[in-house]
Amino acid sequence: MSADTDTDADAREQLIDLAEEFYEQFEGGDVPTMRIPTRTKSNIEYDEDKNVWVYGDRESTRTAKTISGAEKLLKATYTIDFLARQLDQDRSSTLRELYYLSESWDVDEAQFSSQDESNNLIEDLEIVSEVKREDFHMRPEESGAKVMGPLLLREQTNRGDREIHCQDDVGQGGYQIPNNPDTIEFLDNDAEFVLCVETGGMRDRLVENGFDDEHDALVVHLGGQPARATRRLTKRLHDELDLPVTVFTDGDPWSYRIFGSVSYGSIKSAHLSEYLATPEAQFIGVQPEDIVEYDLPTDPLSDSDVNALESELEDPRFQSDYWTEQIELQLDIGKKSEQQSLASYGLDFVTDTYLPERLDEMGVL
Amino acid sequence: MSADTDTDADAREQLIDLAEEFYEQFEGGDVPTMRIPTRTKSNIEYDEDKNVWVYGDRESTRTAKTISGAEKLLKATYTIDFLARQLDQDRSSTLRELYYLSESWDVDEAQFSSQDESNNLIEDLEIVSEVKREDFHMRPEESGAKVMGPLLLREQTNRGDREIHCQDDVGQGGYQIPNNPDTIEFLDNDAEFVLCVETGGMRDRLVENGFDDEHDALVVHLGGQPARATRRLTKRLHDELDLPVTVFTDGDPWSYRIFGSVSYGSIKSAHLSEYLATPEAQFIGVQPEDIVEYDLPTDPLSDSDVNALESELEDPRFQSDYWTEQIELQLDIGKKSEQQSLASYGLDFVTDTYLPERLDEMGVL
Repeated sequence: MSADTDTDADAREQLIDLAEEFYEQFEGGDVPTMRIPTRTKSNIEYDEDKNVWVYGDRESTRTAKTISGAEKLLKATYTIDFLARQLDQDRSSTLRELYYLSESWDVDEAQFSSQDESNNLIEDLEIVSEVKREDFHMRPEESGAKVMGPLLLREQTNRGDREIHCQDDVGQGGYQIPNNPDTIEFLDNDAEFVLCVETGGMRDRLVENGFDDEHDALVVHLGGQPARATRRLTKRLHDELDLPVTVFTDGDPWSYRIFGSVSYGSIKSAHLSEYLATPEAQFIGVQPEDIVEYDLPTDPLSDSDVNALESELEDPRFQSDYWTEQIELQLDIGKKSEQQSLASYGLDFVTDTYLPERLDEMGVL
Repeated sequence: MSADTDTDADAREQLIDLAEEFYEQFEGGDVPTMRIPTRTKSNIEYDEDKNVWVYGDRESTRTAKTISGAEKLLKATYTIDFLARQLDQDRSSTLRELYYLSESWDVDEAQFSSQDESNNLIEDLEIVSEVKREDFHMRPEESGAKVMGPLLLREQTNRGDREIHCQDDVGQGGYQIPNNPDTIEFLDNDAEFVLCVETGGMRDRLVENGFDDEHDALVVHLGGQPARATRRLTKRLHDELDLPVTVFTDGDPWSYRIFGSVSYGSIKSAHLSEYLATPEAQFIGVQPEDIVEYDLPTDPLSDSDVNALESELEDPRFQSDYWTEQIELQLDIGKKSEQQSLASYGLDFVTDTYLPERLDEMGVL
């Protein structure tokens, strides 16, 4: 799975440095501590230079002064040891495997008592070491997302390199994004833009209607809240191939969060925004404005929809005139629409009318 | 998307026949009716010849004698009309699109009031016409499942044929199963057996460890409750390539249902058992017996787990000595284990020890 042995060696070193710090604190007669940025909504702020949301200045401290603090640092050292060996051997594992693996560790206090605990520790290590989980060789559980469009790539698999064209060499299902998309090299493309699509049904509609072919679009299926691998690939398509990125979702507050995680990153992984977020991504819709303008079939907003919209009005990631206007309009009309509701005008309306109109308005087509 | 224009013509004819029946009933002065098998657990029975669970004799009748019955038949005729035109034009659509499309129909009473209503109607039409949904060109929403192993296939896509080897021509993510796997033709293979795997994490572990390569296994990722496409492909791998099919899931009642849907079909789709179910499929585990024998990390059974196990003891699909023994053992120990819990013995235990031992016991390896 290793894309780059230099990256592996760097990651290993960063981890060992962390452990060394504990060692030096002990040696100097100090109680070991680890400082971590506070991970709450009130502690994320906009980085003007990098154009993404990152953690603010607030930090919390793990210290071995308390039993529970000491146990946390013990678990951290055992995990660092496991990760360093994993990198040495060029293996990889999942968060879930790490949780179970800890049962084989010789000190009971180092074992994780829940999956949340091991997940959080890995996130802490990512933040403190400034090394991405993928570079520790911690694979995400699965992505399931896929790409269809005029793109030739080379993927480094653990059985050798594979050259794949994401239209000519794949079935109707498209090219399956691997867990670590940094194993991919882009060789050639005829693409004009990237179109990220929330639902499988809409992705299949676009592929059946040949939208990727007709408009030279790279159709990336998000599959609901996008996995890290999908967000990373999208960012690389933007940065390396200089392609505009557009996001097409349902018209409800949960889908706006999907757009938000593609474009601004998420609160849980603000430390990875630079790696995962595509701040230049543009929202196609379904916009509340579209619900009105195209007179789409709707469902009424539920109480939890209304709460989610109100919380988005407060969310720093949605502080723009555009989003304020759209969200207030939606609260006003009290309705939401799915992307597939466009089918109420026929199966080709989305590819013949809606998307070309929207992409033209947005200056993409 | 059409695999076979003969199939399309047949499907179209079956649908038209149904509509014709209503017409004849009208013409003969009778109130139109449609008879449908009752779809409940008490009305599925074992078909000794075909070795799968099918509907029993109980039927319910839709009749135009009541307003709601008449509306149902009206919706059926509009849907038949839509499907017949879709087949004519060699198009396809999803259940969700059908629901929204109905908004464009000229008679308000023919429009669906909920997605459940249109879903159920399509299932009714499948049962009564004996044509599979895929042959109506109603695509499932998405599958996301994938295959890795020594298999060369040809997929007929709507942009031409694609020849794909499921190890040499795919990335680490494998070959993406299309929504209609009957577009696939098997060209060549070196496979010894099929290994269906519930979770993405375990699928990735097997692929990373090269299990498919070392044991000539076709690793099929189920991704939880398997989609129709995945079950259909699994059945075809068994029937056409004469390969033993094994299923590897978590050790809990919900996962036994996943095995059950691969091997015996599901209650909701008992009319499709012959097309989707692989009665010869064998369960690898995690068995309750393995939890004890390998001393795996466990979680306690929740109340809903216990209820699900007790309901499985009553389920005709689990009426065998093997399942009775395993389920009673699990109720007795009060514990469940995930497939990834095998990682408590190290990352290679599952591929070096557990699977070879189990497959040897089962006579597969």
